[in-house]
Amino acid sequence: MNGYSIPKATLGRLPQYLEYLRNLSESHRTISATAIAKGLSLGDVQVRKDLAAVSGAGKPKVGYERDKLIGDLERHLGYERLTNAVLVGAGKLGRALLDYDGFEDFGVKIVAGFDCNEQVVQMGNPSKSILPIKNLKAYCEENDVKLGIITVGQGSAQDVCDKLVESGIEAIWNFAPCTLKVPLGVLLKQENLALSLAYLNNQLCK
Amino acid sequence: MNGYSIPKATLGRLPQYLEYLRNLSESHRTISATAIAKGLSLGDVQVRKDLAAVSGAGKPKVGYERDKLIGDLERHLGYERLTNAVLVGAGKLGRALLDYDGFEDFGVKIVAGFDCNEQVVQMGNPSKSILPIKNLKAYCEENDVKLGIITVGQGSAQDVCDKLVESGIEAIWNFAPCTLKVPLGVLLKQENLALSLAYLNNQLCK
Repeated sequence: MNGYSIPKATLGRLPQYLEYLRNLSESHRTISATAIAKGLSLGDVQVRKDLAAVSGAGKPKVGYERDKLIGDLERHLGYERLTNAVLVGAGKLGRALLDYDGFEDFGVKIVAGFDCNEQVVQMGNPSKSILPIKNLKAYCEENDVKLGIITVGQGSAQDVCDKLVESGIEAIWNFAPCTLKVPLGVLLKQENLALSLAYLNNQLCK
Repeated sequence: MNGYSIPKATLGRLPQYLEYLRNLSESHRTISATAIAKGLSLGDVQVRKDLAAVSGAGKPKVGYERDKLIGDLERHLGYERLTNAVLVGAGKLGRALLDYDGFEDFGVKIVAGFDCNEQVVQMGNPSKSILPIKNLKAYCEENDVKLGIITVGQGSAQDVCDKLVESGIEAIWNFAPCTLKVPLGVLLKQENLALSLAYLNNQLCK
């Protein structure tokens, strides 16, 4: 689609720039790369290079027009159409993610949750449907779902992962604390919250 | 304390090795760096170097004794005593984190949650106390709390952050989607779940 020529590390920072620009007060019609770098505590040279890759050079002494820069960032991040996602495992974390609507600002819409526990399914969720896992494949096919989020426990994560792959899912975001195997061509992002905390704790203990 | 001589990037991978070794079946009394590298889809050379930094070289043709390697990893990660943490903002995500007991395996114990909403405080949580925010400072001082987790919204995150710093907190794990300012010497780890998802989505859209 787009973004081909942008290095992976740059791409990883684009949502951060986008979020920063969106949160700026409306009075900022233009902003310099230096100001953005300062606001985000990033290096000046890095920000300058990143923004040049998506929006060309800023105007001397003026910088970037905020709205145009937001548009360029959105385009490069493929935010022009929402990607439909499903979540499997409607426990506490799963339900918290189902309720979080901030993902839509980042191009992803969680359209439904799935769970194998009939009670959880019946309990439902105020903001999103929770459906029985047996409906997963049909649902994903009907709703052109390309992204799956796994919030089940470690014991059933690989099984859920396989079901998602069978349902045509092309990218998986896994919160279960285990390494999943996916076929070539399926993207996998491992999220390990405990690991993030462990790392912070380690820096603290030094 | 320890871990001084280990590069930051290595340190970041140690919890992953630890988790992998803990999850191995008991029948694996020894394991080679190559097998660990394969299991985690990491480079052989990298794993070999990382493990050498914490536990010396493995025995030729045998590798490492699993239990000793686990012990060495735990020691280097400072897991010998639990760090007490508090969480502020007992919404859905906050409550999910309060209930998650996996953090203790990684050296951190969330001892209490805090919220400014009196109703949330009264509702409580099955696994952990939820206390009014006005008690934060006294609680942190009494319980030697060094780590604070922020799961409030963007609007009150800086205020909560300042309160944590005043309460003697030395490391902050922030889930609010905004850049916080902390005094020099206070560690800050920004967790942006939407950003992780955005990045996965972008790879998918290419």
